[in-house]
Amino acid sequence: MCCVTSTKALGRTSSKGEVILSKSPILQINPDRLFPVEPSVRRLCGELYEQVRAAPIISPHGHTDPAWFACDTPFDNALSLLVTPDHYLLRMLYSRGVALEDLGVPDRQGSVVVSPREGWRNFARRYYLFTGTPSKVWLDTTFAEVFGLTVQLDEHSADLYFDHINECLSQEAFRPRQLLDRFNVAFIATTEHALDPLLHHQALVEQGLSTRVTTTFRPDDVLDPDFDGFAENVERLGEVTGETVASYSGYLNALRARRAAFRAVGATATDHGPVSPFTACLADDEAGRLYGRCLSGAASGDERKLFRGHMLIEMARMSLDDGMVMQLHPGSSRNHNSALFNRFGPDKGADIPRRVDYCEALKPLLNAVGNEPDLELIVFTLDESNYARELAPLAGHYPALRLGPPWWFNDSPEGMLRFRHSVTETAGFYNTAGFNDDTRALLSIPARHDMARRMDARFLAQLVTEGRLSEAEALRLITTLTTDLVVEAYRLGDRVERFTAA
Amino acid sequence: MCCVTSTKALGRTSSKGEVILSKSPILQINPDRLFPVEPSVRRLCGELYEQVRAAPIISPHGHTDPAWFACDTPFDNALSLLVTPDHYLLRMLYSRGVALEDLGVPDRQGSVVVSPREGWRNFARRYYLFTGTPSKVWLDTTFAEVFGLTVQLDEHSADLYFDHINECLSQEAFRPRQLLDRFNVAFIATTEHALDPLLHHQALVEQGLSTRVTTTFRPDDVLDPDFDGFAENVERLGEVTGETVASYSGYLNALRARRAAFRAVGATATDHGPVSPFTACLADDEAGRLYGRCLSGAASGDERKLFRGHMLIEMARMSLDDGMVMQLHPGSSRNHNSALFNRFGPDKGADIPRRVDYCEALKPLLNAVGNEPDLELIVFTLDESNYARELAPLAGHYPALRLGPPWWFNDSPEGMLRFRHSVTETAGFYNTAGFNDDTRALLSIPARHDMARRMDARFLAQLVTEGRLSEAEALRLITTLTTDLVVEAYRLGDRVERFTAA
Amino acid sequence: MCCVTSTKALGRTSSKGEVILSKSPILQINPDRLFPVEPSVRRLCGELYEQVRAAPIISPHGHTDPAWFACDTPFDNALSLLVTPDHYLLRMLYSRGVALEDLGVPDRQGSVVVSPREGWRNFARRYYLFTGTPSKVWLDTTFAEVFGLTVQLDEHSADLYFDHINECLSQEAFRPRQLLDRFNVAFIATTEHALDPLLHHQALVEQGLSTRVTTTFRPDDVLDPDFDGFAENVERLGEVTGETVASYSGYLNALRARRAAFRAVGATATDHGPVSPFTACLADDEAGRLYGRCLSGAASGDERKLFRGHMLIEMARMSLDDGMVMQLHPGSSRNHNSALFNRFGPDKGADIPRRVDYCEALKPLLNAVGNEPDLELIVFTLDESNYARELAPLAGHYPALRLGPPWWFNDSPEGMLRFRHSVTETAGFYNTAGFNDDTRALLSIPARHDMARRMDARFLAQLVTEGRLSEAEALRLITTLTTDLVVEAYRLGDRVERFTAA
Repeated sequence: MCCVTSTKALGRTSSKGEVILSKSPILQINPDRLFPVEPSVRRLCGELYEQVRAAPIISPHGHTDPAWFACDTPFDNALSLLVTPDHYLLRMLYSRGVALEDLGVPDRQGSVVVSPREGWRNFARRYYLFTGTPSKVWLDTTFAEVFGLTVQLDEHSADLYFDHINECLSQEAFRPRQLLDRFNVAFIATTEHALDPLLHHQALVEQGLSTRVTTTFRPDDVLDPDFDGFAENVERLGEVTGETVASYSGYLNALRARRAAFRAVGATATDHGPVSPFTACLADDEAGRLYGRCLSGAASGDERKLFRGHMLIEMARMSLDDGMVMQLHPGSSRNHNSALFNRFGPDKGADIPRRVDYCEALKPLLNAVGNEPDLELIVFTLDESNYARELAPLAGHYPALRLGPPWWFNDSPEGMLRFRHSVTETAGFYNTAGFNDDTRALLSIPARHDMARRMDARFLAQLVTEGRLSEAEALRLITTLTTDLVVEAYRLGDRVERFTAA
Repeated sequence: MCCVTSTKALGRTSSKGEVILSKSPILQINPDRLFPVEPSVRRLCGELYEQVRAAPIISPHGHTDPAWFACDTPFDNALSLLVTPDHYLLRMLYSRGVALEDLGVPDRQGSVVVSPREGWRNFARRYYLFTGTPSKVWLDTTFAEVFGLTVQLDEHSADLYFDHINECLSQEAFRPRQLLDRFNVAFIATTEHALDPLLHHQALVEQGLSTRVTTTFRPDDVLDPDFDGFAENVERLGEVTGETVASYSGYLNALRARRAAFRAVGATATDHGPVSPFTACLADDEAGRLYGRCLSGAASGDERKLFRGHMLIEMARMSLDDGMVMQLHPGSSRNHNSALFNRFGPDKGADIPRRVDYCEALKPLLNAVGNEPDLELIVFTLDESNYARELAPLAGHYPALRLGPPWWFNDSPEGMLRFRHSVTETAGFYNTAGFNDDTRALLSIPARHDMARRMDARFLAQLVTEGRLSEAEALRLITTLTTDLVVEAYRLGDRVERFTAA
Repeated sequence: MCCVTSTKALGRTSSKGEVILSKSPILQINPDRLFPVEPSVRRLCGELYEQVRAAPIISPHGHTDPAWFACDTPFDNALSLLVTPDHYLLRMLYSRGVALEDLGVPDRQGSVVVSPREGWRNFARRYYLFTGTPSKVWLDTTFAEVFGLTVQLDEHSADLYFDHINECLSQEAFRPRQLLDRFNVAFIATTEHALDPLLHHQALVEQGLSTRVTTTFRPDDVLDPDFDGFAENVERLGEVTGETVASYSGYLNALRARRAAFRAVGATATDHGPVSPFTACLADDEAGRLYGRCLSGAASGDERKLFRGHMLIEMARMSLDDGMVMQLHPGSSRNHNSALFNRFGPDKGADIPRRVDYCEALKPLLNAVGNEPDLELIVFTLDESNYARELAPLAGHYPALRLGPPWWFNDSPEGMLRFRHSVTETAGFYNTAGFNDDTRALLSIPARHDMARRMDARFLAQLVTEGRLSEAEALRLITTLTTDLVVEAYRLGDRVERFTAA
């Protein structure tokens, strides 16, 4: 998808043109990777994939840093770009005994004990741990197609990789905005908390880039009474918006104001990550009473849960008013590992999925707003036992509901197959929302979308060769899944016009 | 399986013999549909399927209207036969914004706002939503093989379909009893609630048809204290049977009397659809005490649950006495969408599966009667996480227990594969009960059984080609799964003799 | 793998050399059994399998009788060796109406009502029930490769089998220790409860065999207050160790002493089978208080659960001290069938898996010791919904945690595929622990390991042909999965040196 822009050959030839007798094996990216084996299915799969191989990337849910695009400064080095911010990598390395310190992860005081090169070597030495994981597919594809590397990453090639990647990053072509062009990114959304000053997104507005790079409103910090610092966050919410958040109605107004502020810099969607999808429909006075108790710290666990569940419905109602797409990502037990959290802070790989039930939990929300065809509510799950049992039947009934793509640990070849196989027969294709890359790893975005396109092509090819779909339907659907459903679900029609028209 | 009986060509030729320049694509039914792709497996799969392709249909669990067979009047029109009673279709259309009114679904007052033709057009226009679902496979097969249609259903062919199907329905050959013959239905069971007067089934007895068309005893309305109108239902149960249901023993006698009445018109089975499979074994006086509290409305939620759970065991005991097969279908959260339920009533696609645990829930029942080899207890699930974990181990141990086929949302190609792959290694083949179509869509019954036969052939073919089963075993098993196990599990030996002997 | 040592031909030729016109079909073991069908994958699968086909068997978790190896006396007969101790077989036969009495299973008084030959005939007659199950693959492989039988087992061949197997068992070559050699067993662990006198293992030490045949410390009987006879067991624990178990600290010392005694006869691991993986981290005085209440019988259900959960953490701490690998096998509801349990005792096929949640349950344990790279904690599950959802993410984060192989009902071709497909993308290969046979059926051990090797080869071959793994990686991994990970996870480096060096 992406070709190397460096003019120098790599891997077995040094950057000075000398031949390096590298001990590392050749890095080869199979052009038919992830395709099924049976020749007739593989052939059709390849044809379907070819329809969307070069389609623009629409990335409506992710975690890249907006400063990259607003400031367009060069990236620092291979380690800080590719390893230390990626909790997919940290967790696996940590699980086999690699200390986070040795990977250059700063502790809560910002202290770092190894040089970037040392951290990279420690990563490279254990890179084999990722064999069989999607992380390895994404990284190898990135190494080969973005950086033009030609040998595999291991302890022998660690320095070669580090030097070469850093050299690339210093070039103009590897500036963030150039990468957006090179990756053919039509649209990318970042995620900011409710109190974020949105400075970078404001800058993007001023630079005329905000239709392409946009924020997402993620208000867990001011909605969830169990969130660290909830009361202080609400107080700041009042300050930021000028609303008197001492009253429940002032609090709702403040939330409306922040939603408007996010929309003003281009946001089309909100995102919510409660520990469970529990919802509750309270009368205003009851909600107000609980709000007071949550703020004062007097609320019991059940009261906090009730308030959190009620506020999800309030968010849905506000979405009906202001047209923002609502995303729900429940079921992660955050910061499971206390010692690691205390030392290094959040997002170090210790968020663990837990069992979630949707049928009864979402009932109050869906009874309140689920019949509204003007609402877009996109639900994700980490608990795949819900795909066929609860989520596909719910999405296959309520007009407001769509299923988000396989999320996080399930954003993988097998996870994608399980999703399509479990969901399609009950929810069909049109109650889904296309692909999300959900990543802060900018460089791997093409590889992630490519994986999704390959797996969708594979699923459709199987249906055709088994006589469950016509080839004409499959040829239409591959584009529907890759772009149309994303545009429709996230209301991006005006953003990606020039791309999808092409 | 079924050939068109209309003498007129269809689709691209009008009913008057003129060529229609239809914009709709050709409708082609792949003769190898659902077969696996690898050539050697496909060949064997086809051979196994051929063994049972034309085998008689035995349909021991379904929801067709007994009036059809008792009165044998022609069906009204395409919409009221194929769309408005089919909650599989309504839910999906509703999920993408089609109002039920626009499909001709009557509200609770019986009011209908569109003509059948308009309703059919609204269905046809969104028929593409079913791409990838079993509903589309069933319908397309029905369109092609029952009605002889040769173009696909879409907005262009909507009227052609509507006119042609209606014309067919007016013909003698499309009368309900003729269809039973044409579809080679050896046996079909309907389902009636405990208070049903059974008039149509009585008529079928008098017409000598009751060994072929039979009822099933479904007593949730008089067993479940949470059922709408429970106390009134029990009062009517007393009136109907002449038992004094004020006492618990009179209530049990009344239930015995209704079971006998159902058996008298041919029933061999009961069916139970509690929200959970919870069972409880109470002493008679405790059960009697709870019964009184449930009738008076004084019972708490826990007491009602306890009583419901106890009555499941009573039903099993009565089955031991009278030989009726007991079916258990738990785990559906009925009428999840209150607004829709209030406007249109039940069965409009808003029943949603929920998580169910069987191991502890069924323990009291299985400890009471599970060791009885003379009891047939057939358990179904919507929660597939139980297949390998709880249900296959339970069925692979208790003599009384069998597993019903994949139910409802899981009655699909992928659902059937998941069932066989998850269940067979622990429960074997002989603790299962063959296929149920579970449908009120009479016209699709051949297509549904055909799908099950194809998927069973596929599963067996895979086992043979992977050296896990001999070809001789597979050739025996395909018939065992298609007919023998159904006959054995539902005790239909005397009903289908002439068919299976042939 | 194993060739018949009997010099006489079998099956269709009698033991006296006469031709028997057996009605039973030929028994053929497909050399490519369990391999995938697509020719290119099958070819590669065969090559990978060939790498490990003859690799030594390392069996770190099982339930064979140590007396067999300590005394090396000949086995009694086909029934008592192959059928009556195997609850996999008993449960299935019982589920289709075969009384345990008729299989020669002794009741609690030791009474047996059929002769071994009669019991064997009753087994043979219903052997077809196992079609499609792993038991049949294991047994057929054993019949063909260990006993050289050439016709299938059924009612016609029952006597031929019984006579031939008994004749084999009387030969020197079928003595337990000879079988270990013939099966190429490098290491095998048995399992003994905490109070076991370890006499046979002591004898094995004296015979110099304890590095090859070793015990495992299974202390549920003295750790779980719900265990039958807990208080008496703890009292005996005090007697056996000379510690004053009236105090909590004495109790801990007694446990340490038993662990040391097990290590002294060669144990490297402990095993724990609580009904749930619930853990709790209590202060010493609180634990001591609960201990007293559990001993006196005053503890509530919640208190007993809390104590059991706390003691799992104590065991982990002791493992950190003494280096024993800790295995956790939760989630089985033991002796589900009371009538059968009362008549025949435990292990008769009525243990049923139930739903288990790991994320929150293991959190206290993992927060206490999960960050210790020196701890080996191997967790198993019967609830596969946890593979991708909770266990792979936990194992892919905590250094102490590894996933055990698919257990019990999931020790099957499909179960193994589900494990690899669900676990690998998140936990990788290196957070797993190789294969366990977990069996008391000594004769089937080669067949069980062979099945695991075939399924691993199959999984790897699929990854390679789909471009997700290089062939070189697959060739390394097949040995890693078969031997290296087992040796590493169970700390058997010094035990199997001579084998793995070869």
